[in-house]
This record gives sequence, C-alpha cells and structure tokens, in this order.
Amino acid sequence: MRSTTGWQADSATRTLRRAVLERRDLRADDVAVRVDFCGVCHTDLHALRTYGGDAHGVLVPGHEFTGVVTEVGGAVSGFSPGDAVAVGNIVDSCGVCRMCRVGQENFCREFPTLTYGGVDRRDGGTTLGGYSREYVVRDGFVYHLPPGLDPAGAAPLLCAGVTVWEPLRALGVGPGSTVAVAGLGGLGHLAVKMATALGAATSVLSRDPDKADEARGLGAREFVVSTDSRRMEAVRDRFDVVIDTISAPHDLAPYLRVVAMDGTLSHLGHLGPVTVETMDLLVGRKRLSSGGSGGRPSTAAMLRFCAAHGITADIELLPSSEVNRALERLGRNDVRYRFVLDMSDLD
Amino acid sequence: MRSTTGWQADSATRTLRRAVLERRDLRADDVAVRVDFCGVCHTDLHALRTYGGDAHGVLVPGHEFTGVVTEVGGAVSGFSPGDAVAVGNIVDSCGVCRMCRVGQENFCREFPTLTYGGVDRRDGGTTLGGYSREYVVRDGFVYHLPPGLDPAGAAPLLCAGVTVWEPLRALGVGPGSTVAVAGLGGLGHLAVKMATALGAATSVLSRDPDKADEARGLGAREFVVSTDSRRMEAVRDRFDVVIDTISAPHDLAPYLRVVAMDGTLSHLGHLGPVTVETMDLLVGRKRLSSGGSGGRPSTAAMLRFCAAHGITADIELLPSSEVNRALERLGRNDVRYRFVLDMSDLD
Repeated sequence: MRSTTGWQADSATRTLRRAVLERRDLRADDVAVRVDFCGVCHTDLHALRTYGGDAHGVLVPGHEFTGVVTEVGGAVSGFSPGDAVAVGNIVDSCGVCRMCRVGQENFCREFPTLTYGGVDRRDGGTTLGGYSREYVVRDGFVYHLPPGLDPAGAAPLLCAGVTVWEPLRALGVGPGSTVAVAGLGGLGHLAVKMATALGAATSVLSRDPDKADEARGLGAREFVVSTDSRRMEAVRDRFDVVIDTISAPHDLAPYLRVVAMDGTLSHLGHLGPVTVETMDLLVGRKRLSSGGSGGRPSTAAMLRFCAAHGITADIELLPSSEVNRALERLGRNDVRYRFVLDMSDLD
Repeated sequence: MRSTTGWQADSATRTLRRAVLERRDLRADDVAVRVDFCGVCHTDLHALRTYGGDAHGVLVPGHEFTGVVTEVGGAVSGFSPGDAVAVGNIVDSCGVCRMCRVGQENFCREFPTLTYGGVDRRDGGTTLGGYSREYVVRDGFVYHLPPGLDPAGAAPLLCAGVTVWEPLRALGVGPGSTVAVAGLGGLGHLAVKMATALGAATSVLSRDPDKADEARGLGAREFVVSTDSRRMEAVRDRFDVVIDTISAPHDLAPYLRVVAMDGTLSHLGHLGPVTVETMDLLVGRKRLSSGGSGGRPSTAAMLRFCAAHGITADIELLPSSEVNRALERLGRNDVRYRFVLDMSDLD
C-alpha cells in the first residue's frame, strides 16, 4: 500500500482531522495523482453531517480536484508523470451497461463508484476522497486539465461545473435561448458563466438583492429578486430553461411559473422526493427535470469549453488545514462562490 | 332566450334528470349547434360527484360533442346552417394574453371559459354543457368536422383526443420514436392510435393482461403487463415518451423508470399535487410533464390528422336517456373505450 496524508472525519466530533491514509498500490490501469486543489462541495458537508462512525467506514470527503500525475500503471498510455489532470465525483463504473455504453457512466446501472464513500469494484474497499495529498484512480476516470485553466479555479468544474453543464447541453441552450439561474452559489455562478458563454440571454433569480452587481459581473443581463412577487410576475412564462441551484428544500412553484411554454425547470443537487402541482406543469406544457454530475464525454467536453471560454470558478482559496472552517462557513452559505483547499500544506 | 332539453344534475341524488334548459339568444358571433353526439368524460363524473347543489349553480356536463349548425349570428362567416361541427372543452378565452396569442387558449392567463361550469365572459352566467340538444357558442370555438369522420366516434376527439394529441406533438413523436401508453381507456386507446399513425413504435402498459389483443388491434407493437416487474424491468429506459393516461392516483416511479434517456413522462388528466423521487428523474435525465386539453390550432390540426388517418374513438353509443348508467359504469372503468350519448332522444 501507499501512504499519504489527508483530512478524515472523526465520528465523535463530526469534524475533520489530519490523518495518515492508505492508497492502493497501482494497478496496471491506475494513475497516481498528487492532489493540489480540491473544491468543497455541499455533498461533503452533507456526508459529514450524516456521518455515523465506524458503521460507515472511514470518511474522507472531496470529489472535485486537480493535480499532477506522479506515477502510472503499466497499461496506462494516456497519462504520464507531470501531466496536469482533474478528477470528479465518480472513479469507476461497470462499463458495459447501456448507460456506460452511451457515455453516461454517472447513470451506470450497477451504480458508479463514487470518489469517496464508494465501494471499489475490485477490492471491495471504501473509497477515500480528495481531501488528501494523493489519489489513486483508474485512468478512464482522469481528465487532462486543458492548458490555460487555473488549476485551483478549475477544481470545482469537476463537480459543480459538470452538474450545471449537463442540463444546459441536454436542454439545447445556445444563442437565442433564455435561461434563468435560481440561486447564485457554487453551482449558480458557474451556470451563469456557462449559459452566457453558450450564447443564452441569462437572468439570475436570487432572494439576495445585494448580488445584483455580482450577477451582472458574471454575465447575467438581468437580476430578479425572487422574493419580489411583482418582479417575478413580470418574468412569468419567460425562460426556456430555469436552472434551479438552490440547495435548501424549497417550493418549486415560483420557479415553474417563470418557465416559458414547453420549457424546462431543471433542479439540481437535491435528493429525495419533490412535489409539484399538476397545474403548474400543465399550464404551458412545462417540464420538470433533475440533475447532478455528468458522464465522461460530457465532463471532457465541459473542460474543453471552459478552456476555450476562460471559465473557472470564482473561489476562496484556503490552506487545507482550514477545511473545518470552510465547511462551517459553507453551512451558512458564506462563500463566494466555492471554497477550494490548497493541499500543499499536507506535505 | 332559446329553449332546449338536456340532462341536468339533481343535487340531492347526484344523478342527472331530463330538464328544459335555456340558451342565450344568438350574439353576432354565435353559432347554434344541434348536438347529435356527446362523449362522456371522466371530468363529467368528477363534476357530478363533487356537485354541491345551488351554490354551484346548475350543472349540465358534456364537453366533447359533435352536431350540425342550425343558425348563425349576423357576423359569422365561417359557418352556415347544415355544417357538421364539433366543440370541445373550452368555449371562449380572453384572446389577448400571450397564451391566447400563440393559440394556446387552453392556457389563457385569464382562464378559458369552460364548456360547462364556466363563467360566460359577457353575461356572467354559468355555462351549461353538451348533454343537451342544443349548444350556443362563439364561432371561434367551433370546429368544422372533416368529412369522412363518423360524428359519433369523433365526439371524444374533442377532449380525450386533443389531450393526447398535444403531448405527442409537443414532444415531437414521429417515425423512429418509441412511445408507451400507460392505461388503455378513453385517452389511452386514442393515444395508441395517434402515436402509431404518427409513425412511432407504440407499446401499451396495462395491468389488465386481457387487453393485449385489443392493444395490438389498435396498433400497438407490444403489450406489457404493468404489474409484472420482470416485464417492466425488460423495458426499463426504453421509451422516448410515456403517455400516462391512468385516471386514478398512482405511483409515477414505475412509469418514469421505463422512460429513455432524455425522454419524458407526460401524465394526463390528473389534478392536484404529484410527487416524484429526484433520483427517478435524475438518473437518465428524464422529464416530467403534465397535460390536458389543447388550443384551437392544435384541435383543428388534430381533427385534420384524424380525418387523414381514419381515426375516431372506439365507442359504446347509448341513447342519452342512459346517461346515468353510463356514468355509473365509467366509475367502474367498465367501458371500451368511451361512452357517447346519442342526443336524438331529446327531441
């Protein structure tokens, strides 16, 4: 086994403490990555809050990171030591089901192997995430980081970025589209950048009037205070696509109401049941969809697009030793727009 | 006022009894229609079950009928006495809102005037439906019945027909599409006929194995017993469009599961809240929509399509005096596939 250092959950305090972690010896198709920057995702916070100790195995969060290849297995031809790379929230899949065959490994029928808290398909062990200095991963789930993308700002593209990219692409957003982004956080600010770069007229719906200038700075043409019913009524039936990135449970009705005829509300990052009034869908033939993560071709295409358009996340970069403070602030939505941990302090 | 005869609700017994009804004198843009055939819709049953007597005004159901023009107002140029015509579930709308302007009067911002139980936009009176020998209606909401369509079998096209037509068209069903129709009743059997005529490979999902031969007779290539989990698993992720016509409340999850990647579950004829699991939408980027009724251009297009393809409803034709028996049987789903009342016994 290989040894590295990382941030591991303590089940008693539900905080992260520095620990020595084991990584597997390289298999023939493995790549060892020195993790330089890892984004802090809401999922990490959720995992930590629900972490129940030994029954859940060891918890090391982190599933959007960038770094440099340090070593490759004997059968790896696509990567060499020194390559700048990125890894997202899945690190393996069955490879043979219909979803894997069409490049939607995130929907693998056998369930994809998650970057942390997953079960390794070969040895049955629990995967440990990117809040660590090294990660070992199958070559098929590593992406070349395009030149020109800042590796710290690029880290959140691997989860937040592809999560907003998938619905934008699947719903055909492009020049002439009208897109509203509800919520201006880690996902939302990337949705604004990407939708705008795709050529859409992009609006932001946010309850926080103070974000108006920032929204425009990100590329939005319009800012609507979502708690102002008069303003929301003025944009009723207006948007081909509404990307709902609000992480807390909330009523979908106001966001369905601003979807245009035959348009779609895509709500991201939620889990569990959602309830909508039939009439809110029926009137205007609106559609509801749900998103999260992406497949390998889509992730690679998103990185190329971001490189071409100079898109990275707007981040607060912290030494990894401040991970607990970052998570605590994230819990209060006190971040603009994504925390990224600098892992070099683990050396 | 004009006088006619119809079937009016008795609030004490919640049955219909024969009564003399008043119709308005013809306005300049009105058409008087002798109602020959009127379909019996689930909505009629629902209206009668929830009918509360005087507070609700007089209830005369019926919103899918065909007949012959008997008289026209002075400003009507599109219809003449003797014309075969049809009327659906809306008889007026504001005409100026965005939805009306794009020909989706069914989504009128001011709410369309329903064929019965609606409020007339000019005199404020309650509209009385097509379970009667005469109906008076604005010319804009009357459709020419294309030659060659049996007027009895065509009556259900005006509500059931356009309700399934709208999602099939909005979702782009055509040659190469795979469509599943869940539920083989009034809506479902028309969905099978229309989807097949549009060129789709059509399957039927029904809990009733006895309907297999009928489904194939209607044009379905495949019949899946929806309670057979093995068979349902075999068609998982298979259909671009699933038209869910099941009238009783039910779990949407099994029907979402058979929707293909980027496909849509369109559930029709429901009202009230619906709940879905986020993961059932997320995995496969599936969409949920809801439908009912249609606008004027769509209704006219549907009638032309049905005439070109010889599509009418498969009906049980009863004298209108048997309306209470028809409703009672409909409540037990004992109908293949739509009751139509022959109104000539009201003369």
